[in-house]
Amino acid sequence: MKIISFKAMLLAACLSLPCGAAIGRTLPLPAGLVSLGSEQGAHLLLDSEARQAYWPLSLQFVTQKTQTYCGVATIVMVLNALEVPAPTAPGIEPFTAFDQDNFFNERTDAILLRPVLAKIGMTLDQIGGLLGAYSVKADVRHAGDGGLDEFRTLAVRYLGTPGRYVIVNYLRRTIGQESGGHISPLAAYDADTDRFLILDVSRYKYPPVWVKAADLYAAMNTPDSDNENRTRGYVLVTAGD
Amino acid sequence: MKIISFKAMLLAACLSLPCGAAIGRTLPLPAGLVSLGSEQGAHLLLDSEARQAYWPLSLQFVTQKTQTYCGVATIVMVLNALEVPAPTAPGIEPFTAFDQDNFFNERTDAILLRPVLAKIGMTLDQIGGLLGAYSVKADVRHAGDGGLDEFRTLAVRYLGTPGRYVIVNYLRRTIGQESGGHISPLAAYDADTDRFLILDVSRYKYPPVWVKAADLYAAMNTPDSDNENRTRGYVLVTAGD
Ligand SMILES: [Ca+2]
Ligand SMILES: [Ca+2]
Ligand SMILES: [Ca+2]
Ligand SMILES: [Ca+2]
Repeated sequence: MKIISFKAMLLAACLSLPCGAAIGRTLPLPAGLVSLGSEQGAHLLLDSEARQAYWPLSLQFVTQKTQTYCGVATIVMVLNALEVPAPTAPGIEPFTAFDQDNFFNERTDAILLRPVLAKIGMTLDQIGGLLGAYSVKADVRHAGDGGLDEFRTLAVRYLGTPGRYVIVNYLRRTIGQESGGHISPLAAYDADTDRFLILDVSRYKYPPVWVKAADLYAAMNTPDSDNENRTRGYVLVTAGD
Repeated sequence: MKIISFKAMLLAACLSLPCGAAIGRTLPLPAGLVSLGSEQGAHLLLDSEARQAYWPLSLQFVTQKTQTYCGVATIVMVLNALEVPAPTAPGIEPFTAFDQDNFFNERTDAILLRPVLAKIGMTLDQIGGLLGAYSVKADVRHAGDGGLDEFRTLAVRYLGTPGRYVIVNYLRRTIGQESGGHISPLAAYDADTDRFLILDVSRYKYPPVWVKAADLYAAMNTPDSDNENRTRGYVLVTAGD
């Protein structure tokens, strides 16, 4: 409801203002975020200090299938980037790849039932559980249990190492976006501006953005009512044995 | 059938050879192609001389839905990159974006019926027609009507200009891949090696590759029996009025 009324507000504003081009297809970004699709955003990537995750993830970039599937889309990208053995899918036999349908099986159902996921999405802890269901190593970190410095240090180390990934779970409105809890993978870090690149899987809604480390940390350091009010946070991911 | 027997052959070979890691999830590349996922491939992009198309297309990268949907996936990427007004889709309302389902409407049906597409895919001329159905300007060029130099000049100009795209239709086996006609967008050009970057939409099968301009031209300059034996080729795309 919030989203619809926000869009309606924007459209109403545009009837009297020349703001067509600024709206485009995705929502406008707040001043604190830099779109990867902008000249500045592309330059930050070309000049970024840690971007090992960018290459494999950008090749596996997908759009979340529904508005509660951000976690599924994110995990699918990471599993494909890690080249975890995947099932096939109708139409691509005999080839294999994870998608947002064949991701689910009895092991994932044991962690999170699909009707619950479809209704409210997944929590930080469930991201860890679902990765574990595919024998991928997941180190789940609630933001409230550490600090900004610890997050920055660990995330930069992971983004600078091949075969390692960082998934973030954050409250959008804290970084000025519409509006609730969200999940996406990180792709890069720029030291000069202290910004992380989020490959936002809601590609119909927002482009990938460069966000200040402190702002992202603040957005992760928020209580999640779907997770017993534990704080959101991040998951450090590496291939299993 | 060809694909299955090829994979079986590979698997059989691997029973006696230590080639597990080299096979991975996608098919092995011939020596003449450089994967964007390799260190060399990433370096070519960072040092490429024309890459305007890369940024918007990489943000819209999708996997073809079935083995005959390479053309649909390619056009969807280009329409989204151009920010052509799009329909919504179940699960993402009120937002909008093209996908490989909502792309079809009465105007596309007038150019290519879905059952035919599902069976044999689309031809070069139909790419142009389908883009036209969305009021996008498409200049269809059969490879046999021009030469390598003309292709290189035009494609490099388009890849170096924001809001312009190049779609290629080529015979895979000519560049050493398995095996038939294929369609994908170009994303960049590297002058030092005279190579184009193909963002291959069959992500379950091959990574994006850097291919020599002459090899790509040769693969486009092949007769398509689904198109009255006219040669394959490329489509130069710009936004409509
Ligand atoms: Ca930098
Ligand atoms: Ca939630
Ligand atoms: Ca170069
Ligand atoms: Ca064909």
